[in-house]
Amino acid sequence: MTRKLTTHWHMMKFSGQGAIEQEDEIAEEFPLTLYVDGEEFATIVCSPTELTDLVVGFLASEGVIRQADELKTMSVDEDRGIAYVELIRPQSVGKEYYAKRFIGSCCGKSRQFYFQNDVRTAKTSVSQIRIKPEQVYSLMETLQRSSVDFRNTGGLHNAALCSVTDVLATRADIGRHNALDKLFGHCLRNRWRTSDKIIAFSGRLSSEVVLKAAKIGVGVMLSKSAPTDLALSLADDLGITCVGFIRGSSMNVYTHRERIASPDVEV
Amino acid sequence: MTRKLTTHWHMMKFSGQGAIEQEDEIAEEFPLTLYVDGEEFATIVCSPTELTDLVVGFLASEGVIRQADELKTMSVDEDRGIAYVELIRPQSVGKEYYAKRFIGSCCGKSRQFYFQNDVRTAKTSVSQIRIKPEQVYSLMETLQRSSVDFRNTGGLHNAALCSVTDVLATRADIGRHNALDKLFGHCLRNRWRTSDKIIAFSGRLSSEVVLKAAKIGVGVMLSKSAPTDLALSLADDLGITCVGFIRGSSMNVYTHRERIASPDVEV
Repeated sequence: MTRKLTTHWHMMKFSGQGAIEQEDEIAEEFPLTLYVDGEEFATIVCSPTELTDLVVGFLASEGVIRQADELKTMSVDEDRGIAYVELIRPQSVGKEYYAKRFIGSCCGKSRQFYFQNDVRTAKTSVSQIRIKPEQVYSLMETLQRSSVDFRNTGGLHNAALCSVTDVLATRADIGRHNALDKLFGHCLRNRWRTSDKIIAFSGRLSSEVVLKAAKIGVGVMLSKSAPTDLALSLADDLGITCVGFIRGSSMNVYTHRERIASPDVEV
Repeated sequence: MTRKLTTHWHMMKFSGQGAIEQEDEIAEEFPLTLYVDGEEFATIVCSPTELTDLVVGFLASEGVIRQADELKTMSVDEDRGIAYVELIRPQSVGKEYYAKRFIGSCCGKSRQFYFQNDVRTAKTSVSQIRIKPEQVYSLMETLQRSSVDFRNTGGLHNAALCSVTDVLATRADIGRHNALDKLFGHCLRNRWRTSDKIIAFSGRLSSEVVLKAAKIGVGVMLSKSAPTDLALSLADDLGITCVGFIRGSSMNVYTHRERIASPDVEV
């Protein structure tokens, strides 16, 4: 059975003209349970596409692996919604460990929010990338033009890895985090360099999204949506440029504006 | 320190007219770590308002309590972001137990997705409520008019408990689930009857949202956004009416349309 991003559902559409029975395109939602070295690790509720990317990206986000080749075997049983992974170096995955909030004494004001696995995997960005406002608008427009499923269902998020001029890979999911994990997995499986790349994203910039950007290794996050304050504090700390509310040819640059190259602004 | 839904951030706004430094209103994001009977139970990333409602609703959603009076003590330390709860009848909370997906042999096609705590707390709706399309449009309009913070920040979700004619209580949060948990907590703390009520919601109807509606005990979920297929399968199963894409005077009724009373439709 090959699964897709969307499926169909019969519904009753009410409008000024009365009510009619109609078929609607809606987003699929799929629970994938992940076993690591024979032990149940997590259930990820996701869109059932690019599941190999998702598993690799999820494990890297959680700090279980750093490279795709740390996996000895991986199989995904789509019918049963189960993925099995064996690590080259089995470790006690220690669920307790992953849940603990890390209260650090060092660093910036927002650091006390980090979780222990974040401290191991999120690193401060040293990206030297520069991007012009027109390039930002153009990348976001490309992302939105390619997001046909979002326009049809209203229920999917998109994340794209970009160079300054081009969208290189796009991943979609009902979950914001999953879309980013799929992109992360894709980068790791293809050994892509990320420090000279940018992520364009349909979703909100929350702390988790900024932490994922740091783990993936990009220096710039572009979003058509809003940021939260904790996301911006973390971005400040981690050296990540956050741009929000990108709509047409306007945008808000919240952090590390030195990467936005514009003749109008002193940077 | 009293915390609010939103805060301010200095940013650089780019538009056709060039770039100007400007203050932006953004959503606060706050990590609250919850201890139950001295043991760390969860960290909830949320908007820092109505935290007592949130803790009560979260514990009820997770199946730890059924009534607010099952809590012996509760205190919230806002400065440190920690909530402490003691149960009347301490139980081994068993994190392992909560993570396990429940593969049931009974019931409808979507039941295999339920988690064990959902099976204990989500019940099939027997709500006898009926609502007219005009009442649906009016409730959603009221919810949206009251959502000033969402319009300002673009980063908050709203959930409202409604009668057929009135919005009775509204809760906001950066997290969709938290907004519903705050509403749930409010209902439990005030011993509100819910089977004759409706929830109006700004966010997407995912499986988790439908499960929460079932736990709260309402028979109708109204949303301005899209549903997912798994959400609709669960709603079918659990006897919940799902209405999505409510915009102006149009809407899509996806499940259990018998609760939508309209002269145009045979129900």
